[in-house]
Amino acid sequence: MYDTIIIGTGPAGFSAAMNLKIHNKDFLWFGSKNMSSKVEKAEKIRNYPGLPEITGQELQAHFQHHAETMDIEIQEKMVTMIMKNGDSYMVLADNELYEAKTVLFATGVMAAKTLKGEDSFLGRGISYCATCDGALYKGKRIAVICNDARFEHEVTYLAELAEQLIYFPQYRGSRVQAGNVTVSAGRPVKVEGESRAERLVLQDGQILPVDGIFILRNAIAPDTLLRELQTEGGHIVVNRRMETNLRGCYAAGDCTGRPYQYTKAVGEGNVAAHSIIEYLASLQS
Amino acid sequence: MYDTIIIGTGPAGFSAAMNLKIHNKDFLWFGSKNMSSKVEKAEKIRNYPGLPEITGQELQAHFQHHAETMDIEIQEKMVTMIMKNGDSYMVLADNELYEAKTVLFATGVMAAKTLKGEDSFLGRGISYCATCDGALYKGKRIAVICNDARFEHEVTYLAELAEQLIYFPQYRGSRVQAGNVTVSAGRPVKVEGESRAERLVLQDGQILPVDGIFILRNAIAPDTLLRELQTEGGHIVVNRRMETNLRGCYAAGDCTGRPYQYTKAVGEGNVAAHSIIEYLASLQS
Repeated sequence: MYDTIIIGTGPAGFSAAMNLKIHNKDFLWFGSKNMSSKVEKAEKIRNYPGLPEITGQELQAHFQHHAETMDIEIQEKMVTMIMKNGDSYMVLADNELYEAKTVLFATGVMAAKTLKGEDSFLGRGISYCATCDGALYKGKRIAVICNDARFEHEVTYLAELAEQLIYFPQYRGSRVQAGNVTVSAGRPVKVEGESRAERLVLQDGQILPVDGIFILRNAIAPDTLLRELQTEGGHIVVNRRMETNLRGCYAAGDCTGRPYQYTKAVGEGNVAAHSIIEYLASLQS
Repeated sequence: MYDTIIIGTGPAGFSAAMNLKIHNKDFLWFGSKNMSSKVEKAEKIRNYPGLPEITGQELQAHFQHHAETMDIEIQEKMVTMIMKNGDSYMVLADNELYEAKTVLFATGVMAAKTLKGEDSFLGRGISYCATCDGALYKGKRIAVICNDARFEHEVTYLAELAEQLIYFPQYRGSRVQAGNVTVSAGRPVKVEGESRAERLVLQDGQILPVDGIFILRNAIAPDTLLRELQTEGGHIVVNRRMETNLRGCYAAGDCTGRPYQYTKAVGEGNVAAHSIIEYLASLQS
């Protein structure tokens, strides 16, 4: 069992990871090896103390270099579910299960809204994970909604399985191509069905009958990942120690609320790591 | 009237100052031009994200350079009292009075304990400010307790006024010399008296009759500076927005509690500045 699993490789996750590393904790760090695409895209950051007038790419490069010097490794896996299991947490990442004494949400904020009905049909015709659930839709008709080009390989994988795939890229410059793929410019807003998701409703009123819907996003809403987690207005509720309502579960960075600032994020990641270290020590005594 | 007065030039104060500057707020920033002596003395900082394996002096130099590029000025003044005055704050710095809509405590933590009786005799024979109260002790016998060599010019100033000065340097390498100064290696622990401070008690039991006592420290306890401020265990009580119990009064960094970390401090300074900016906007509407 790991001491900690950190979800998210932005500034908050990085700040936490380095402190856990310094304290010799046995942790996994899940997310993109590119760390934060939000940082990367920032044009000019003026208020990161110590690094004046820096571009997002430069800050990113500083972070990556720092992580390398400390030998901290990122596991490029997508976490799709977390379950509280007594005193520990089970984390599903790319369909593999990991167990840890603590988890840290450093997942950022979701740019995209969830669809109406998404939450209630999740696991019943709606999936966040091509690798996990793709095989269930062999020879079926599916819709795939995706907000980042870096998941296109998963779309291609799903196209190989499905009979027909209607693709809704929520970004510019989609390169997904296959004989059974129809690319749509429509805007999905709602999922309907009886016991399972059966229809995807678009903004223009069009209704598409489907067997399943895959939603591939950078981030999954925290309380969708972990059911019992308390959120408010889309943000994880934390106290000054970055503790959530669940013992052993912490959060840091944009996912805990405004201001959405890199400096705040690294500060909270630091505090979360210290709270985690204290908590782990208390388990031993 | 100023928008904000920031007290303290460590990482938290700096992080706040840069954000207030970016938002064109009219603020004063009080503290040492050397910024934080705690940062400066740090041997090696491994967990400031983006600046790997940096010495305290290097981090300090980064901060100072950053402050220069943004044209942020430090007023090298010691704040000795703050009063809430309706919706604004009156701040006494080097015996001059300044008014601001908001104040931010970024004062760090006090290394030194206060003396027994210090709090109750403050303003009645005990003073934190040579410039303010020195003249009251012309021709008198005073004790001066000081924990930083950078206040030695104030001790010299007091020696010019007093008849006799017993000096208690709480640091190594005191260079204070004058015919009427006795340097003592004793450790003051307690102040006694009736309506005023009359006797200084040392750890070894020695009792010195005095007319007044000056205590020159890097930091004054926050709730001594501002009477109504809520503290707990020596730390200022704040919420996640870095608001204290007093409207318009904020705190950030070590003075708000553990972990005592530069990364936490810059994060909190950032959040405090954003809360202040929001509050100032609310005053206008």
